[in-house]
Amino acid sequence: MSGALPPVDPVPASSVAAFDHECDVLVVGFGCAGAAAAFEAATAGAEVLALERAGGPGGSSAMSAGELYLGGGTAVQRACGFDDDPDDMFAYLAAALGPHADEQKLRLYCDGSVEHFEWFRDRGLTFNESLYDAPSWMPPTTDGLMWLGENAWPYNTLARPAPRGHRPATESFGGWLLMQRLVEAAEAAGTARHTDTRATNLVMDGDGRAVGVVAQRYGTPVTYRARTGVVLTTGGFVDNEEMLADHAPVLLGHGKVSDGLDDGGGIRMAAAAGAATRRMSVVQIALTALPAMLVRGLLVNALGRRFVNEDVYPGLFSAAAVRHQPGPYWAIIDEEGYESIPAQDLWGVRPRYVAETLAELEESLGMPAGALEDTVAAYNHHAERGEDPYFHKAAKWLRPLKPPFAAADPRAGFGGNDQEGTGVAGFTLGGLHTTADGAVLNHSGRPIPGLYAAGRTAAGIHGEGYVSGTSLGEGTFFGRRAGRAAAGDGKAAG
Amino acid sequence: MSGALPPVDPVPASSVAAFDHECDVLVVGFGCAGAAAAFEAATAGAEVLALERAGGPGGSSAMSAGELYLGGGTAVQRACGFDDDPDDMFAYLAAALGPHADEQKLRLYCDGSVEHFEWFRDRGLTFNESLYDAPSWMPPTTDGLMWLGENAWPYNTLARPAPRGHRPATESFGGWLLMQRLVEAAEAAGTARHTDTRATNLVMDGDGRAVGVVAQRYGTPVTYRARTGVVLTTGGFVDNEEMLADHAPVLLGHGKVSDGLDDGGGIRMAAAAGAATRRMSVVQIALTALPAMLVRGLLVNALGRRFVNEDVYPGLFSAAAVRHQPGPYWAIIDEEGYESIPAQDLWGVRPRYVAETLAELEESLGMPAGALEDTVAAYNHHAERGEDPYFHKAAKWLRPLKPPFAAADPRAGFGGNDQEGTGVAGFTLGGLHTTADGAVLNHSGRPIPGLYAAGRTAAGIHGEGYVSGTSLGEGTFFGRRAGRAAAGDGKAAG
Repeated sequence: MSGALPPVDPVPASSVAAFDHECDVLVVGFGCAGAAAAFEAATAGAEVLALERAGGPGGSSAMSAGELYLGGGTAVQRACGFDDDPDDMFAYLAAALGPHADEQKLRLYCDGSVEHFEWFRDRGLTFNESLYDAPSWMPPTTDGLMWLGENAWPYNTLARPAPRGHRPATESFGGWLLMQRLVEAAEAAGTARHTDTRATNLVMDGDGRAVGVVAQRYGTPVTYRARTGVVLTTGGFVDNEEMLADHAPVLLGHGKVSDGLDDGGGIRMAAAAGAATRRMSVVQIALTALPAMLVRGLLVNALGRRFVNEDVYPGLFSAAAVRHQPGPYWAIIDEEGYESIPAQDLWGVRPRYVAETLAELEESLGMPAGALEDTVAAYNHHAERGEDPYFHKAAKWLRPLKPPFAAADPRAGFGGNDQEGTGVAGFTLGGLHTTADGAVLNHSGRPIPGLYAAGRTAAGIHGEGYVSGTSLGEGTFFGRRAGRAAAGDGKAAG
Repeated sequence: MSGALPPVDPVPASSVAAFDHECDVLVVGFGCAGAAAAFEAATAGAEVLALERAGGPGGSSAMSAGELYLGGGTAVQRACGFDDDPDDMFAYLAAALGPHADEQKLRLYCDGSVEHFEWFRDRGLTFNESLYDAPSWMPPTTDGLMWLGENAWPYNTLARPAPRGHRPATESFGGWLLMQRLVEAAEAAGTARHTDTRATNLVMDGDGRAVGVVAQRYGTPVTYRARTGVVLTTGGFVDNEEMLADHAPVLLGHGKVSDGLDDGGGIRMAAAAGAATRRMSVVQIALTALPAMLVRGLLVNALGRRFVNEDVYPGLFSAAAVRHQPGPYWAIIDEEGYESIPAQDLWGVRPRYVAETLAELEESLGMPAGALEDTVAAYNHHAERGEDPYFHKAAKWLRPLKPPFAAADPRAGFGGNDQEGTGVAGFTLGGLHTTADGAVLNHSGRPIPGLYAAGRTAAGIHGEGYVSGTSLGEGTFFGRRAGRAAAGDGKAAG
């Protein structure tokens, strides 16, 4: 990082003559992890103050789809006829978020998931007891449950499939509703908020304890003292180009899934005070390819080759493409398949190229002669037998493709008119190294006293993979634990 | 990292009553970067002390093949008839070490390469003026020059190809000879050495300046004061399983290319004192697949698919496999191809499976029926025309493969008897964030006064890719710059 970024050096407590504000638990960033931490800390009896650099709470969480990855037998799952348990949930996530998922945090997350679901309901969030049973990035309905890849190979061989995408009862993006309920709950429990207030530096005492922050408010420094703990929940660093270049360059030049303020400030502040980081290169990646089209056709790389079963969770086909295959990527489909896509799942995606023969199509796509012909011949040969021995797409989607053919370009975006796009957007998953109770560790593996983190500011349950709903899910789950720990609640000590 | 690792918290200078030893420039780690730094600092007039935790100098550098990636028109290149220049060298490395190579450091490295070559000769290292002109991980001769992928697609379209692998004049692994010369030079210039001495913590003064280290020597703490600078050259972290899990899990479970002491101690010590790191997930990976076999045949993944031109630099086909393709990987060849491999390039590799038909072979390898047949049919179809439209292997290697066929398993190792191996070994490339003069930066982007790093302790010229000779090459190149800077030599300030 260059000197152009705001300095994040810790400020000695001895240099702060008098703090402007004081509380027990200071929560820095009022997104989903911050709201969950604030609620629990306040409920435990702490005086809680939440800082937010924007004009109001919500952060990137409020702009999200609002999906929560929950399971193990929630009321919504049971009402929809699914018999889930924490072990199946764990087995799926360990594989889908892997390799190298954090199994300790993941075990807690799965074992506590039914309770966490009920916690959301107790906060006034409702979930309709119905399943959206079609491949999609985001259902166009108010169904409360959706599949997030649990029924796709190889995951359906590792764990009993059950849908675990839980959706607040609202149309389209539900993150705003989620955040409205969580902020209301945190404030009802006694949390005070200071908005337009951006924390810039930790305040550390002579014993290496985090005792507050220095913030900026309309260009004026303001100091905050935290008697028991500082909880950093400022989001990830997708909006910081220098940090991306240093740690996660795969996202450079692509779209950012954020509120524009995920500049890694919390990570940098803590690291400057001696905090260790973890998995800083790991990212979530979304390719704007249409699941409903892919399951009925093929996802191929620049050489016309398939590389994944097209019915996996969309985040996983996206990562399989962007991280591991030469682009551009293409969705290949035939007329019969295209016509069979329900209108509500088409999202305005139209083919960029249409051709009577694969030879024509591969020429339009700049592929070697024979590339698509070979791929489709092998696919059709096996599809006639209801098989996909290479990638194991579910039999219900297998059907030989027949002329005429079409290719859709993810770079065009879902609306079909994003001519400048790369077709790729994402956010960061790496961050501060924390215990399961959110305590931030230093480079000797010991907690920095008084310092906690949760949400995308911390490295969480993810290895190399990502599934929707795990950011809001773990942000709130581990945010709650961090809030309790910061308040000194003995119940969280285990 | 857990508390099981030695604590690395910085020690306040005020707590050190009297230092046991004192010097101007303290070099921590006496491998190639340390020796280069020590030589330059001592030559600039500084009193230099080099610490080494092993019983003698050399480190991982001494166990390496000794290849140096140098070019731009060295005497060896010219004697072998190659007209190279720094721009072509830069264009090749920017692509082969990319994406996201550090172009500022790379530019300096290429522009200074002829001078750096002469510096090695001035230190007594000799290079035979002959080229080994065959694909290999390491020539079995004493030729002084070798190709490192410069003549393979797509690199041969981006830069005028010239071989740049420079090899000290010795049979087999030349790292010991390189280190012998560099240590002799550093000591002749006045460097003192303390072996069996492992630095554990930086000593920082009240102004945030690195002024020395605390070390362990046969279980006893020893303190060292550095008047002008501490240079950390302790290697990477491939031997630290916890750091691998946190930052580069792709290497977990694989072989380690190191002297067994690359435990990341220098990185952790500096990070604990507020240093920023960069690209901690980036690694070098070697797959024990035989270049001489691959160029004559195919490298395929677990599904029987090619994914790279087999004549690229072996580190690049290795990374293309291990990072991006489903394994296991197989070298596929026919009898005619196998028989044509010169004995000196065969390295004891024998096929694991032999078959009269590809149908038999793909069954032995557990691939879907038709997988290898389709791959070889497409390869042969184009090879008959001298073309490889998918991956652009050089025409001289293209020839239709005919029965009988064979498959060699990289997991067997080069000797053919490493039944327990994974076929993969590597080391880490990420590390401390430094300027081109080795100054270690903090999280605000400013140098930590008195603190320098080079070699694998620092992030260097590499993006995602790796080419042999760039670790010894940049370790010595930027080690020299760091040594001059630490000595306060004004010439290095630019």
